[in-house]
Amino acid sequence: MKYKMTISYDGTDYGGWQIQPNRKTVQELIQEALKIVLRTECPIVGSGRTDAGVHAKGQIAHFSYDIPFEVSPFRYSLNSLLPSDIRILEIEPVPEEFHARYSVKRKIYHYHLHLDPVQSPFYSRYKTPIYAPLDLDLLQEALPLLTGTHDFSTFRGAGYTSTNPIKTLYRLAMTPEEGGIRLEFEGNGFLYKMVRNIVGTLLQVASGKRPVSNIPNLLESKDRTQAGPTAPPQGLFLTKVEY
Amino acid sequence: MKYKMTISYDGTDYGGWQIQPNRKTVQELIQEALKIVLRTECPIVGSGRTDAGVHAKGQIAHFSYDIPFEVSPFRYSLNSLLPSDIRILEIEPVPEEFHARYSVKRKIYHYHLHLDPVQSPFYSRYKTPIYAPLDLDLLQEALPLLTGTHDFSTFRGAGYTSTNPIKTLYRLAMTPEEGGIRLEFEGNGFLYKMVRNIVGTLLQVASGKRPVSNIPNLLESKDRTQAGPTAPPQGLFLTKVEY
Repeated sequence: MKYKMTISYDGTDYGGWQIQPNRKTVQELIQEALKIVLRTECPIVGSGRTDAGVHAKGQIAHFSYDIPFEVSPFRYSLNSLLPSDIRILEIEPVPEEFHARYSVKRKIYHYHLHLDPVQSPFYSRYKTPIYAPLDLDLLQEALPLLTGTHDFSTFRGAGYTSTNPIKTLYRLAMTPEEGGIRLEFEGNGFLYKMVRNIVGTLLQVASGKRPVSNIPNLLESKDRTQAGPTAPPQGLFLTKVEY
Repeated sequence: MKYKMTISYDGTDYGGWQIQPNRKTVQELIQEALKIVLRTECPIVGSGRTDAGVHAKGQIAHFSYDIPFEVSPFRYSLNSLLPSDIRILEIEPVPEEFHARYSVKRKIYHYHLHLDPVQSPFYSRYKTPIYAPLDLDLLQEALPLLTGTHDFSTFRGAGYTSTNPIKTLYRLAMTPEEGGIRLEFEGNGFLYKMVRNIVGTLLQVASGKRPVSNIPNLLESKDRTQAGPTAPPQGLFLTKVEY
């Protein structure tokens, strides 16, 4: 049987989703909990990695296990073994052909910016504070120039060249929220650090350091060094993965 | 000149408000930051202590300093020196007779309970999860029995007998919020651990372990051992102090 898990985590204290040496990761802790409950190694496959410090409200992973079990007490056992900053929200059986990574149709990321002069301590783990004044009209103008189907190489993290850089960004919207704004990204796939590199570039536009009219040339250049800096991880949430 | 500071903090990583040996406290870190900015020791007086792990959205403290300064850059300097889980929200000059503790007219505390079967990781620092089913109608029935002027000795933390135990609870209300409820306490003063001991007792009522009709006798008993356990600190916020 194949199972799909919906997972939420506060990424502050982790080296990201994917197992790696020397840092505690979310995937590793979930696999350790599964091993205790199922009494056997049970690798899980995530929808994609999230970086160190990035959060998730709806990360998806799958695993296979052949002995039937009751989903609700199983979820309860896993959550009892996991630290409180990682929670399994749902577990459900899925058809054998389901694959957490290859079956993804759409992913939604939110990036939260705190714009008040003093940042609430309760947001310090979950929003990126911006102290410079931002022109949100300029930011708004730049958004439609990034939506659609493009080669997003300009915004790909350096050293990651394996996947196809042509992606479709269905939606990129700015929504006001308490203390600031959030940027909502909805696309069929995202390159490594693409969201954070776009946010870093949009912040340059909003603070007057880069003209809106530069965005099309920037996309065209396919040159990471032309784009803005990578925005910090703590404002970023993997909100939803659709199949 | 006397100054009033409004302070917000995430209490998770602190040994509470008040300076004490061997644990990092909020008062201590603010005094250290003041010492750097003012180049002299500058003791601050808070509206009252908060315990280890308890949060504040509107703690108040005062200090005296005779050389005039500009409030806004001063606040900025203090916040730059403080960790991001402690923020000075406001600083304003006040009349000499103002005293952060003795001039308090009213304090408001909120206690947040998470009632969903799986707790969001983003609430784990700020709400107390309750896994047992609660009868919120019973809880609601108990609230008016606790409001008004009473000797609250029953709910005072053991070993603290110095202050007058007669307090007025102007308001005690239950408000639904995402994932659970919050209990709102508004009173002219609170005894040590009084809010958390009342919450622990209300949880006994709501889970059917104590009849609502027991509350008046319980207040009458003035016996801490008759009341429920102390609810955990992470759900508690000092929301506002009024003068």
